[in-house]
Amino acid sequence: MDKWDKRNRPTRLEKRFEFETYQETRDFLDGLGELSESKKIFPDISFGKTYVNITLRPESEEKDAQITDLENKFATRIDGLLD
Amino acid sequence: MDKWDKRNRPTRLEKRFEFETYQETRDFLDGLGELSESKKIFPDISFGKTYVNITLRPESEEKDAQITDLENKFATRIDGLLD
Repeated sequence: MDKWDKRNRPTRLEKRFEFETYQETRDFLDGLGELSESKKIFPDISFGKTYVNITLRPESEEKDAQITDLENKFATRIDGLLD
Repeated sequence: MDKWDKRNRPTRLEKRFEFETYQETRDFLDGLGELSESKKIFPDISFGKTYVNITLRPESEEKDAQITDLENKFATRIDGLLD
């Protein structure tokens, strides 16, 4: 599975997921919504008919906040939605 | 209710919806998903915990495609999800 892209200014993890159909896109978004709710982590998400882009920012809103285990584990759980 | 912003290059309609809670955001997204599926119109959507941004482009992918009744009616239906 592709890795998440780590980007800076501001620090964040990003990944694009592509799907064959709108139904698959929605199923993924539903799973992601349940995961967000259970973990209380709410990434920024963009999507269209067959793609979803996710941006995960550090939970801390301090200026120099870094990506921690919290975000990395959440990213891994998102990947797990596709298993 | 606020109007949709009509923007150019490329021609599109945009609107931002804000919510009090993640649950309201998800309910709106669910309604929007059902609407998209029934009308076979799939806007680009960005969302976070308490906001949803929607971008509606002309169905025609021609270079000078304009917003038509099709997009305007769909925008009105999206507004209707909040009634």
